[in-house]
Amino acid sequence: MTNLLSIESMPLENIQRVLDVARQTGFEKLPGRVVVNLFYEASTRTRLSFELAARRLGADVITFDPETSSEKKGESMKDTALTLQALGADVLVIRHSESGVPKFMSDFVNCSVVNAGDGTHEHPTQALLDLYTIRQRFGQIAGLRVGIVGDVKHSRVAHSLYLALAKMGAETVLIGPRRFLTSRPGPYVSYSLDTELASLDVCYVLRTQKERHQHAFDPGGVAYKLTTRRATMLPDHAIVMHPGPMNRGEEIDSEVADSPRSAILDQVTNGVAVRAAVLQEMMRGR
Amino acid sequence: MTNLLSIESMPLENIQRVLDVARQTGFEKLPGRVVVNLFYEASTRTRLSFELAARRLGADVITFDPETSSEKKGESMKDTALTLQALGADVLVIRHSESGVPKFMSDFVNCSVVNAGDGTHEHPTQALLDLYTIRQRFGQIAGLRVGIVGDVKHSRVAHSLYLALAKMGAETVLIGPRRFLTSRPGPYVSYSLDTELASLDVCYVLRTQKERHQHAFDPGGVAYKLTTRRATMLPDHAIVMHPGPMNRGEEIDSEVADSPRSAILDQVTNGVAVRAAVLQEMMRGR
Amino acid sequence: MTNLLSIESMPLENIQRVLDVARQTGFEKLPGRVVVNLFYEASTRTRLSFELAARRLGADVITFDPETSSEKKGESMKDTALTLQALGADVLVIRHSESGVPKFMSDFVNCSVVNAGDGTHEHPTQALLDLYTIRQRFGQIAGLRVGIVGDVKHSRVAHSLYLALAKMGAETVLIGPRRFLTSRPGPYVSYSLDTELASLDVCYVLRTQKERHQHAFDPGGVAYKLTTRRATMLPDHAIVMHPGPMNRGEEIDSEVADSPRSAILDQVTNGVAVRAAVLQEMMRGR
Repeated sequence: MTNLLSIESMPLENIQRVLDVARQTGFEKLPGRVVVNLFYEASTRTRLSFELAARRLGADVITFDPETSSEKKGESMKDTALTLQALGADVLVIRHSESGVPKFMSDFVNCSVVNAGDGTHEHPTQALLDLYTIRQRFGQIAGLRVGIVGDVKHSRVAHSLYLALAKMGAETVLIGPRRFLTSRPGPYVSYSLDTELASLDVCYVLRTQKERHQHAFDPGGVAYKLTTRRATMLPDHAIVMHPGPMNRGEEIDSEVADSPRSAILDQVTNGVAVRAAVLQEMMRGR
Repeated sequence: MTNLLSIESMPLENIQRVLDVARQTGFEKLPGRVVVNLFYEASTRTRLSFELAARRLGADVITFDPETSSEKKGESMKDTALTLQALGADVLVIRHSESGVPKFMSDFVNCSVVNAGDGTHEHPTQALLDLYTIRQRFGQIAGLRVGIVGDVKHSRVAHSLYLALAKMGAETVLIGPRRFLTSRPGPYVSYSLDTELASLDVCYVLRTQKERHQHAFDPGGVAYKLTTRRATMLPDHAIVMHPGPMNRGEEIDSEVADSPRSAILDQVTNGVAVRAAVLQEMMRGR
Repeated sequence: MTNLLSIESMPLENIQRVLDVARQTGFEKLPGRVVVNLFYEASTRTRLSFELAARRLGADVITFDPETSSEKKGESMKDTALTLQALGADVLVIRHSESGVPKFMSDFVNCSVVNAGDGTHEHPTQALLDLYTIRQRFGQIAGLRVGIVGDVKHSRVAHSLYLALAKMGAETVLIGPRRFLTSRPGPYVSYSLDTELASLDVCYVLRTQKERHQHAFDPGGVAYKLTTRRATMLPDHAIVMHPGPMNRGEEIDSEVADSPRSAILDQVTNGVAVRAAVLQEMMRGR
């Protein structure tokens, strides 16, 4: 595994390999390897997750903050990538508000590149940790029915997750107001959360991007909120997921988020293991 | 020792245990343990002290900066604590400008919580390193007379130190202008530094909080400054302490701060050892 | 080697020792040693280079950011240095916009001080990595002719490099518009890049300090730009160097920067090894 740029381009066998490696208790020790966090878009929790994952392998991890760096002096992203590689980076973990930046930078370097979220495109390690969490709860993924609820259209989390579920043989239904659903062919689409709840094994609630929607009066919001009452309409075995950070009371009620069927904190925990597995598979051969 | 939230709630045997462990030359190695610095209120020196303490144990230490984190996106402190625990934190080191926040957060998590200073409440690890430094200089603590000079009322350092000294059998006299002295029953109170100096074994000068008092004309300030002249009124064996960072020329003269009787840099050095002892006692059993 | 404050004060045998140590494949492991990055002037790449160098030795490295630190509360640089030493620092790596600050601070502390760039004075580790890179390409340094092109007068990089080349027996010619050339006696001076190119073994292009020159209409700029056409006037064996970060298209054409004769990324890579050598020589005896 050289790069992890998208779920779309990730072979099924690599997905399965990462899920298996993440389950092991002890990772390989790879001292002296260098992981660089290059986050053009702030995300403390994802950055810390990668940082802890790298340390679990005994690798060094450094953070390159473009805000205070020479990019401010006019250095291009290409030169930043080449410089970090020349400093000894084995893996660049890149987050950017523009879709395609990790792919763009991977063309210039020989070291590995991990997409830690790019624009509205993909967030592949999030999808991998989501798969891991689902398999942990159900023992398998194939055959499950997963509802992804909210602003699916602008969500890289939703996009990567749908592609990952499809590869693993699960069924996805995208649930939200018409304007937030993609017209891309593929998964089932529904405009009614109430109608779908009883059929779901997993109810995956997306974060409301207040930044994005603050100007719009959102009459549909309440219809797609996972309230305490709605959660009772889920099958007993169904679980609730959320990529975090949550807006409690906005897209999900606190009582649901804290209930036994919530796997939200498991997602956080599993994220470190899954990212350690990704980094290990990339660095072990180097 | 699960949490360290205050000196008030810390059993005497735990205080003595920390002081003894801090004196050892080699700490246990606890690789893979994770310490998280969660500083809502900036304090470079305290943060670095905890960071170096954690590394002395071979533990990983990460810094969660709420300023640039998802809390800005509306995540609650509770969710931040739960997320950091889910990421693998063994200890949360929390500083906050509001009293009670570390205690508040400790109610939500199973990992350990260390109060690194909360509002005007307490700063227990500062008091522990102060005790350590006093014992290092005098061989014992019981029976000594310690003057704490300055704005005692608003000082969490003063509050924790007084409680710690009382538990260890030392006598405290709080020295400052009337409006800065607490009405809480307990230690002796004096409005005259000049009168007290000759009786002190330790003269502990508090930092002037310019931020707090900048609007007030402070006619009493000079009366409570430890000048070079006043320092000559201390017994020969007496030592001078300050929690740092100093305002040289403000609450203490440079000549006093740099004199042989100053233990101010010892406090800094001992802070790392004492915090390593606290972290070791918390993490060894986990 | 206690301090590294300037090339001017560095004995030749120490320069040679650093170059030799940097070439070794495995460094000594110095766990528990503490390197502190104290950067008053931002420089992500230099800071990361020192950080990775310290980790290559197994040492701990912490960053003290004066912007968010107690210096804002009025703490002096002297007290910052003393505090960092008391926290356990073995080496302070200091960058400052004023010339002489590293030397100033070294007078107060017993730990080692490395000048990571001070004002327009010196940047000695940059010169050492430049020497290393030149020797790597040519097998030796003595007898080579090195052109340093651009705003030589204000460049600490140029100043340190010239001194280092002189000590190693190489010949330097400073090339730039009259107002940017120093009147200090020493190296050859030329106002014509075109005239000099054919005689150079190394063409060292300085970064244009846009910050510094933005107000001035710079008619001489184009005359000192290393264009693709000009690069063809260099001897076949000649190499091109730049301290980074580059302004592509400004002082150097992209095609030149990316050509086989460019050693620019080698400089970055060698910087980590050279700094690890410096740190090792400082810390091994402590």
